[in-house]
Amino acid sequence: MTDTHDPQGSPASVGAPATIAAAPFEPPATASLAALSRRGFLRGSAVGAAGLAIAACAPSALPGWTYNPATGSPGTSPTPAGSPSPQPTPTGQPTAGPDQGSHATPGPTGSPSADDMDALAEAVVKRFPERTALVGNQLLEPRLDGDVKVFEITASAFTWQIDALKLPVNAVGYNGTCPGPQIRVTEGDRVRIIHHNNLHESTGMHFHGQDVPNEMDGVPFLTQPPIKPGDTFVHEFVAGPAGSHMYHSHHNATDQVGRGMLGAFIVEPRDPAQRYQVDQDIIWISNDALGGFTINGKGFPATAPVVASLGQRVLIRFMNEGVMMHPWHLHGMPMRVVARDGYPLGTAAFTCDTIGVNPGERWDVIIDARNAGVWAFHCHILTHAEGHSGMFGMVTAMIVER
Amino acid sequence: MTDTHDPQGSPASVGAPATIAAAPFEPPATASLAALSRRGFLRGSAVGAAGLAIAACAPSALPGWTYNPATGSPGTSPTPAGSPSPQPTPTGQPTAGPDQGSHATPGPTGSPSADDMDALAEAVVKRFPERTALVGNQLLEPRLDGDVKVFEITASAFTWQIDALKLPVNAVGYNGTCPGPQIRVTEGDRVRIIHHNNLHESTGMHFHGQDVPNEMDGVPFLTQPPIKPGDTFVHEFVAGPAGSHMYHSHHNATDQVGRGMLGAFIVEPRDPAQRYQVDQDIIWISNDALGGFTINGKGFPATAPVVASLGQRVLIRFMNEGVMMHPWHLHGMPMRVVARDGYPLGTAAFTCDTIGVNPGERWDVIIDARNAGVWAFHCHILTHAEGHSGMFGMVTAMIVER
Amino acid sequence: MTDTHDPQGSPASVGAPATIAAAPFEPPATASLAALSRRGFLRGSAVGAAGLAIAACAPSALPGWTYNPATGSPGTSPTPAGSPSPQPTPTGQPTAGPDQGSHATPGPTGSPSADDMDALAEAVVKRFPERTALVGNQLLEPRLDGDVKVFEITASAFTWQIDALKLPVNAVGYNGTCPGPQIRVTEGDRVRIIHHNNLHESTGMHFHGQDVPNEMDGVPFLTQPPIKPGDTFVHEFVAGPAGSHMYHSHHNATDQVGRGMLGAFIVEPRDPAQRYQVDQDIIWISNDALGGFTINGKGFPATAPVVASLGQRVLIRFMNEGVMMHPWHLHGMPMRVVARDGYPLGTAAFTCDTIGVNPGERWDVIIDARNAGVWAFHCHILTHAEGHSGMFGMVTAMIVER
Repeated sequence: MTDTHDPQGSPASVGAPATIAAAPFEPPATASLAALSRRGFLRGSAVGAAGLAIAACAPSALPGWTYNPATGSPGTSPTPAGSPSPQPTPTGQPTAGPDQGSHATPGPTGSPSADDMDALAEAVVKRFPERTALVGNQLLEPRLDGDVKVFEITASAFTWQIDALKLPVNAVGYNGTCPGPQIRVTEGDRVRIIHHNNLHESTGMHFHGQDVPNEMDGVPFLTQPPIKPGDTFVHEFVAGPAGSHMYHSHHNATDQVGRGMLGAFIVEPRDPAQRYQVDQDIIWISNDALGGFTINGKGFPATAPVVASLGQRVLIRFMNEGVMMHPWHLHGMPMRVVARDGYPLGTAAFTCDTIGVNPGERWDVIIDARNAGVWAFHCHILTHAEGHSGMFGMVTAMIVER
Repeated sequence: MTDTHDPQGSPASVGAPATIAAAPFEPPATASLAALSRRGFLRGSAVGAAGLAIAACAPSALPGWTYNPATGSPGTSPTPAGSPSPQPTPTGQPTAGPDQGSHATPGPTGSPSADDMDALAEAVVKRFPERTALVGNQLLEPRLDGDVKVFEITASAFTWQIDALKLPVNAVGYNGTCPGPQIRVTEGDRVRIIHHNNLHESTGMHFHGQDVPNEMDGVPFLTQPPIKPGDTFVHEFVAGPAGSHMYHSHHNATDQVGRGMLGAFIVEPRDPAQRYQVDQDIIWISNDALGGFTINGKGFPATAPVVASLGQRVLIRFMNEGVMMHPWHLHGMPMRVVARDGYPLGTAAFTCDTIGVNPGERWDVIIDARNAGVWAFHCHILTHAEGHSGMFGMVTAMIVER
Repeated sequence: MTDTHDPQGSPASVGAPATIAAAPFEPPATASLAALSRRGFLRGSAVGAAGLAIAACAPSALPGWTYNPATGSPGTSPTPAGSPSPQPTPTGQPTAGPDQGSHATPGPTGSPSADDMDALAEAVVKRFPERTALVGNQLLEPRLDGDVKVFEITASAFTWQIDALKLPVNAVGYNGTCPGPQIRVTEGDRVRIIHHNNLHESTGMHFHGQDVPNEMDGVPFLTQPPIKPGDTFVHEFVAGPAGSHMYHSHHNATDQVGRGMLGAFIVEPRDPAQRYQVDQDIIWISNDALGGFTINGKGFPATAPVVASLGQRVLIRFMNEGVMMHPWHLHGMPMRVVARDGYPLGTAAFTCDTIGVNPGERWDVIIDARNAGVWAFHCHILTHAEGHSGMFGMVTAMIVER
C-alpha cells in the first residue's frame, strides 16, 4: 500500500493540507487485522496493486484489478474501448445516446455540470483506500502477571485524522487512536486493565457486555468515583461472557464516547469448538459524532477495505458507538447474521444484505466471499454516505480477489 | 374509482390548485397491483363505493362502507342515530358529556377550537383515497430477445404529485413515475436492463440485493464509469437470488434516490413450491426525502388503500428507500413476518403488529385479513403521520370487506 | 422511600424550585408495580435505605448499599480509604497518578474544571431515586357490571413533573398521570372503557395491538367520529390477543400522545400455563416528546429503579410511545427477549444486552437477576442519557440485592 499509492500526490490540487495528527503514543508494532487485510490485499494481488497505481492517472481504470488496465473498463465512455469480457458472462454494452456530447454542458442555470460533479466524485474514489497517519483498532498485547493478562490504557486528548484532506478533529481516546486498541482475551481469563487518565476532565470506563463486579462497572457515582485527571484506576475481573463486546467511557459520555473513547473487547469462547471458523476476523466500529460519520475512526476514502480471496469466510463484528442507527449494506453477497451482542443467535440466525445496528449493539455476520469484485459496503442512510461531491463517511468496499 | 370519486370536487373549498404533474411518459397500460386492488375494492363492493361517494357530503359517514349510510356511524355525535350493530358484537355507546355543547368554544386563548381542528382532520380523511394524475409501481412488461427479458428504463426529471392539493415536487425518476416501474422476473432469468439517462447529470443503477457481475453493480468509479447525460448503459445478468429486491441510483444518491430514482425488483423463486401462496402481492416502498413522507410516492390522503376480502391472505413487501427507519403499524390484525431482504426467515419468522424497516431493508409480511373494517395502517413515528391539521404522509388503510 | 429520603433536602442548593404538579385526580390507592418495587427495595434492605440516606451527605457513598458506608467506596479518590472487599473478587486498586492534584485546575481556557463537572454529575446521582408528587402506571381496578370489567378513564390537561427540579411540563393524559393508569385484564374478558374527554380539543382512543371491532378502533373519521370536548365514548370489546399492549390517543396524535395520552394495556393469557412465571412484572414506557426523554413519565434522577433480590426473574415490558427508536442497555446481566408486540417469539427468542425498541413496538424481556449491585440501565443513544452536567432523561438502574 505505502509503496504503490502516495496520498500526497493529488491533494495539492484540492487545496486542503494533509495534516498529520499529533500522536502522543507510538503506533503499536502489532498491526490491526484491518491493516493486515490491506497488506494482504496488496501483497496477494500484483494486478490489484498495479490497477490502483494506474488508477492515479487513468480515470476509468480504478477498479481495474480484475481487468487488463490497457483495455479500459466496461460500460459507457466517450471512447468505448470494447467489451472487456465478451462472454459467457453478460456484460455492459456501451451505446451512444441521442445527445451524447451534452453532458459537459451545465444543467439548470447555476447548477454544476455533470462533468464537474463526476470529477469530484471520481477524485474521491481514486483516493481510496487512502492512507492516514494512524489507524485505530490495533491489537494490544497483554503482559502477564502470573495468570493475569495486564493491559495498560491511557486516555488523552489528541487530534485525529478521519480523512487525509480534512482538518484533523479534536479527539479524546485511548492510547492515541480512535478506536482505541483492540483487546482480545479468552473467556475465563483473569484480566487487569490499568487505566490512566491524562485528560483535563474525569472519566470512567465501562466494559459493555461483560459481567464485571459491580464496583468495576465504571459508572461514576453509581458504582464508583470518577477517575480524576492524573489518576489511575485498576479494573480486574474474569472475562465473560464470550463474544463481541466493547469498552468505552461512561462519564460525560455523549462527549467522551462521541469523540473517541471507545474500543473493541473481544472474548473468545473457552471451548475452541465454539469459536468462529473463519479466514478473517474484522472489527467494524461505527461512530457518528467524532467530526463525521466513521468506520473504525475513518471516513471514506480513508476507510480500510475488507479484502478477501474468493471462497474465504469473513467475519465482521459490527459495533455501534454512535448515537444513530446505521443499516450496513453489502453489495454482491449476503451476510449470515450469527450473533447479537456476543450471544449466538442459534435458530434465530438469519440472512440479509442490510443489517441495522443500533447504538450499543453488536452484530456478528459471516460473509462467504463467493463473488469476485470491488463491492461497495456502506451505510444505507444515504446522507451518511454520498453527497453532491461524491461518496464520504460511512463507505468502504469489500474486495474479493480471484 | 375514477368513475365514482371526483377529486376535483372538493379542492376548491381548500383553495389550493390540484396541479397535474407533467408526464413525459404515458402511464403504462398495465395497472399496478395496488391500482388493481383499488379497483377491486370498488368493483367488489357497491356499498363501499356508495359509502365513499356519500362521504363527500355526509361528514360522519366516510367509513360507512360496512354500515347503511343512512343510519350514520356509531359513537358520540350531537345527534346519535342509534347503534348500528346492536349485538352480539359490543358497540360504542354515545353518552352526553357534562358540557357537551362546549366543544365549539375555543381552547386556551389563541388556539383553534376543537371543531375547527376536527373540520381540517375530517376534510383530509374524506379525500381518501384521493386520485392523482399518475401512480408509480406500474408493472413493466419485458420484451423477449431470445430468452432474454429486456426492460427499457429512462431516467428523467419531472414534477410529481404526492397529493392532489399540494404543489408537485421536482422529482427525478424512471419512466416518469415515483417509484419507477415494477420489474418482475423469475430466478435464473437472463435479464437485460437498457438504461437511458435523460437527466442533466450522470447516474448509475444498482440492483440492490441481486448478485450481479461486479462490472454491472452500478457504483460509478468503483465498478464502472457513470452514465453520462444522453448516454445509455446496458445491464445484463442472471436474476438471483429470489425475493423482494430494489433498483435505484447509486450516484449522487442522497439526491437522486431521495427525489425518486428507485423501483421494485421482484424475483420469483424458480421452484413454484417456494412462491408465496397469497391472494394479493403488494409492494410498499417508503421514501422520506421526496418533498415529504411517502408510501409508493404518495402521501395521505393520496396513498392507495390495501383492499382485501375477508379471509384473503395478503402479502406486503415493505421496502425502505429513504433515510429514516419507519415502524409500520397495522390496526386490527397482526402481520406474520416471513422474509428479510428476500431471504425466508424460516424458524426466525415472527408475528407482530409493528415492523420497523430500516433504509435499504425489505421485509415481507403476510396478513390474514380476518377482521372486517377500515383499519389504519401507518408509520408509528407520529411526526410522519399526523399533525394539528389531521393525518398526512405515511398513512393509508387496510380495508377488509365482508 | 418517603420515610428515609427527603427530596426537598438538597434542591435549595441548586436553586430551582421543586414544583408540585397540579393534580385534578387523587393518586390511586393501588400502587404501581414500579412503586411496589421501590418500596420493596427499601423494605427489603435496611442497608440500602441507610446507604441512600447517608448518600445525602457522603459524596462517595451513594451506591454504598453493598458496602459499609463508613469505609467509603472503592476506587480512586483523593483520600483512598482502603479496598472494601480485599478478596476473592478482584477489586479496583487506587493508585496515585503523576499529577494527582491537578484535577481541580481548569482544563483548556474557559472550560469548567473536572471537579466542577463532577460535582454536577454527582449531585444528580445523589438525588436518585428522586421522589416526585405523582407517578403514572398505577394499576386501575375495574368495577364489575355482570361479567364486564368496567374501567373509567378521563382525558384532561394538567402539569406534570418529570423531575423534581425542573418546571413541570404542560401535559395531557388519562386520570391525571403520565403514563395513564395501567389496565390489566385476561384474554377473553369482556372489557368496557368509559372514556370521558375533559380536554379543550377532540380526541380518540386506540387500543394498540388489540383486535377490537372496527367501530371501536378509535381513529376519528376513519372508524368513528372524534370524541368532542365534554363528551364520553364507551368502548366495549373482548380482550385479545394476549400480551403487552397499549392504549393511546389517535387524534392530533403527535401532540396528544407526545404530551402523555398513553398507557399500558396488559392482557394475561387465558391459559395460566402460558403466563410468565416471574417474580416481578414491570412496565417500561418510553416517550421522547413530553418535555424530555422519559421512562414511565420521568427523567433521571426521578426514574424508578428496578429493584430485585438476587436470583429473581424480572419481566420488563418495553413499550415505545415516542417518535424515536431507543436501544435499552442493561449493565451486568443480559436480557432474554421472549415476546414482540405481545406475541411469543418461540424459537426466534434471543439474548442480548441492548434492545432497540421502535415507536409502537413492545418487547418483553426476562432478566435473571444473577449479579448483585447497582447496574445502570439506560438508552444507549448517549444524547438521551448524559451531558456535560451529568446523567438525565432515559437512565435508571437495576438494583440487585444480595
